[in-house]
Amino acid sequence: MSSTLSEAQRKTLQDEIKALGDEIRALKTDKADPQLIKERVAAMLQKKAALGDEQPSGKFVLKTPKGTRDYGPASMAVRESVLKTVTASFKKHGAETIDTPVFELREVLMGKYGEEGGKLVYDLQDQGGELLSMRYDLTVPFARYLAMNKITNIKRYHIAKVYRRDQPVMTRGRYREFYQCDFDIAGQYDLMLPEAECLKIVDEVLSGLEIGDFYVNLNHRLILEGMFAVAGIPADKFKTICSSVDKLDKTPWAEVEEEMIKEKGLNSEQTTKLGAFVRFREINPTLSNSELLSKIAELEGLSNNDKFKKGVSELQVLIEYCDIYGIKSVKFEPALARGLDYYTGAIYEAVAPKALEGTAVEKAEDAEGQPAGVGSVAAGGRYDGLVGMFSPKANVPCVGVSFGIERLFAIKEARQAAQSVLRTSETEVFVASAQKNLLKERMKICKELWDDGIKAEFAYKANPKLLTQLQYCEERKIPLVIIIGEREIQEKIVKLRNVASREEEDVPLSSLANAIREKISKLL
Amino acid sequence: MSSTLSEAQRKTLQDEIKALGDEIRALKTDKADPQLIKERVAAMLQKKAALGDEQPSGKFVLKTPKGTRDYGPASMAVRESVLKTVTASFKKHGAETIDTPVFELREVLMGKYGEEGGKLVYDLQDQGGELLSMRYDLTVPFARYLAMNKITNIKRYHIAKVYRRDQPVMTRGRYREFYQCDFDIAGQYDLMLPEAECLKIVDEVLSGLEIGDFYVNLNHRLILEGMFAVAGIPADKFKTICSSVDKLDKTPWAEVEEEMIKEKGLNSEQTTKLGAFVRFREINPTLSNSELLSKIAELEGLSNNDKFKKGVSELQVLIEYCDIYGIKSVKFEPALARGLDYYTGAIYEAVAPKALEGTAVEKAEDAEGQPAGVGSVAAGGRYDGLVGMFSPKANVPCVGVSFGIERLFAIKEARQAAQSVLRTSETEVFVASAQKNLLKERMKICKELWDDGIKAEFAYKANPKLLTQLQYCEERKIPLVIIIGEREIQEKIVKLRNVASREEEDVPLSSLANAIREKISKLL
Repeated sequence: MSSTLSEAQRKTLQDEIKALGDEIRALKTDKADPQLIKERVAAMLQKKAALGDEQPSGKFVLKTPKGTRDYGPASMAVRESVLKTVTASFKKHGAETIDTPVFELREVLMGKYGEEGGKLVYDLQDQGGELLSMRYDLTVPFARYLAMNKITNIKRYHIAKVYRRDQPVMTRGRYREFYQCDFDIAGQYDLMLPEAECLKIVDEVLSGLEIGDFYVNLNHRLILEGMFAVAGIPADKFKTICSSVDKLDKTPWAEVEEEMIKEKGLNSEQTTKLGAFVRFREINPTLSNSELLSKIAELEGLSNNDKFKKGVSELQVLIEYCDIYGIKSVKFEPALARGLDYYTGAIYEAVAPKALEGTAVEKAEDAEGQPAGVGSVAAGGRYDGLVGMFSPKANVPCVGVSFGIERLFAIKEARQAAQSVLRTSETEVFVASAQKNLLKERMKICKELWDDGIKAEFAYKANPKLLTQLQYCEERKIPLVIIIGEREIQEKIVKLRNVASREEEDVPLSSLANAIREKISKLL
Repeated sequence: MSSTLSEAQRKTLQDEIKALGDEIRALKTDKADPQLIKERVAAMLQKKAALGDEQPSGKFVLKTPKGTRDYGPASMAVRESVLKTVTASFKKHGAETIDTPVFELREVLMGKYGEEGGKLVYDLQDQGGELLSMRYDLTVPFARYLAMNKITNIKRYHIAKVYRRDQPVMTRGRYREFYQCDFDIAGQYDLMLPEAECLKIVDEVLSGLEIGDFYVNLNHRLILEGMFAVAGIPADKFKTICSSVDKLDKTPWAEVEEEMIKEKGLNSEQTTKLGAFVRFREINPTLSNSELLSKIAELEGLSNNDKFKKGVSELQVLIEYCDIYGIKSVKFEPALARGLDYYTGAIYEAVAPKALEGTAVEKAEDAEGQPAGVGSVAAGGRYDGLVGMFSPKANVPCVGVSFGIERLFAIKEARQAAQSVLRTSETEVFVASAQKNLLKERMKICKELWDDGIKAEFAYKANPKLLTQLQYCEERKIPLVIIIGEREIQEKIVKLRNVASREEEDVPLSSLANAIREKISKLL
């Protein structure tokens, strides 16, 4: 691998190594933080290794890249069980799935994530071909896919990893490589029908995952724009004031108001008006969603604002559809003001405030003085303009929801750790022997079980100890164990034992698979 | 994104753009191939865009990176069904699953893939942190994972994409981004037990996928080394002569012999001896595996070679275990000589020569004058030294198998296209209306079905035409359709129609879900 560098690349590396060497000497002279010095030395060794001049003498640190981690069997088992619930719901609603390459032409991603987001995109090295970057989310690749293939109608989900060169905070679950899980409906359809189905899916998935109480805040871009206009807030302050308003779920009004006045240049007349609007649910805690929507539309000024009225009438339809679908988790929340870079209509965000209650994660976070809640576990909305960024003539309205799947993984992991029910393999029965020289007998029984569709294992040792075999079953939570000895082989039977209860019974070899299936079905 | 470039990077880009401009002018003067000119222009525009000086005026070509493609719903449906069979077999044998980051520290991959492989590794740009490269396979990350976590025992599978900057040949299925699907057993176990389980899994998976006849060639590194030594072939020619011998499955002996003499410097005494060894199965087509092993060990010279004898006695054990497991697909093949960069013991490779017979792919390939066979669909062996490359003191012997999962996807895709049975969604019933103004009725029925676990869809239109709704069902191969009208609503019934046979019956709303379940179970 070392020979693929161009002369220019070698030169650059050599310069960087020299600069790092100078820096390290200076740091040592200054008696700087040893950790910092260590990091700079590691960086220099890595560059030297890349240059190929000096091998790092087999002594480099074995680690995964910064901000990434391996998913071991326990994490993967949680992931699989969460994704099973999620994909079952997507499929119940007729969704297809797609996948796209992990990297895109750099141009495809450029200009899609604002100034901040753009800086966090991973670029691939120019190795003499196209300029490529790692995908930053699944939405832009989806829009590119629709535009490129001239697809105007699709209901699809996409579960895949995305990449952000963010400052990682592993303890808070912020990684540089993480899964996203998106469901989207593209196509020209009648008002609010796709939105209602997205909310139904959110409701189904979060109920199905059993993460405790959750609710879904609902708002509309036009409602926000209308309220801001009536409050006299200039259009160019829309985004910055949105980000203040959005803090109202965690921060008292007085603080938010102070920020808007002192940092963002609003006056108290503006904030007073705005407060009456965005705090409308807070002020009227007993009203239903449709009552809230009717009443807020009667407030001074709002009743004459066309944008506002359009937003309200759309949400009224959506709320009615949610009622039909039996969705009780949705709450109209005029202070929800998130993700407005590209959303054009309804927006929603699901919150599960008590999902980590009683888990080790909650305690760990409390110790850091951080709140134990997990914030958003799903969010989405309507975005009608994105496909047009790739194909200006295309009119492909979209609406979707992205599950905070890493948070859901973390919640389930914490909850399952508390219950210690997790299994990383699905083995139903272990074939053990009580005496020596029964290897081939164990193999024959396993063969019959495998061919019969039973999940079975045995020890890869000629003469394993019975105790070792039984311990393996207990450690791995394998529910059943078969024990054979000379007597059993002569009588063509096996001892079938329940690992937990230690109950045993003799079962004829000829009906073994059925006996196992029956016991397993009772254990579930 | 354009502002993340350092001054040095800008300078490099500017130089490259200038060079490309010069090249394009020269090509135009020479009236070179317009396609080539177009490519160079595109490369220049891309670099200009990266520089941020000139936006490509929204007119860049919408495509995926070279050598990659999107997986649309049809491909994903094939992938899901293949992976379901594969993972079911892995789980039946007690395997866990893991995942690792898509990129690794560059040092982790360095020196693991030989000179050729090393050149094909994708590097990430140095954006001021660690030097990273995209994973090239799943085996090296697995060894890194074991060494890093000091794991000495695991039976795991890993299904994920890997990256190679190879010259892509899309028509032959060679891509730069593709899935690998590996099953490996790490740990110190008794002779040939893990190998036998790997072969059982290969047998199960390939039978389960129904891709037609297949067989598994089996050999051993020590058998190859012994044969080569007895034939007088110097050790430094081991790899190059292996690559000649390995061609014997497609090339006649005379051609292979000529290559070894003319290009690789063997003499005819050496090739004559080697030929008698490596063609032993070809010469004795009627012998069983154990007969072949016994007889080949009697050949002059081989009977005295310790390596050879050890290899043979190991394979004799493995063949006996395969017999116990009822594996009929395994064939001892002394000419199998593949993947010997890191294999240390038994090696095997599964071939499905007729998997594409009768499919469109076979015909397309014939037209290109290429053979229709698909070659290797799974391969593996024992590799006891890899973990030690990361952790010299660790002794973690490994054995595994990697399925040619992209080939298996392609085979299933071609076969299913021939049968046109493919569905991309799992919708069981579509809820249609025969009259106007029944949107909410359709929604209510869907809601009940969803809540009952039935996969259901309806049109996102207030007043869709019945014909349009029925056409959608036929296109998407949705098996059942519910049709409601005023009469049905009054009588609290629905019409349930089989889309294919057009048989209809009235079903009471109260027992609808059960009626659908019953019909679906009969259709399967």
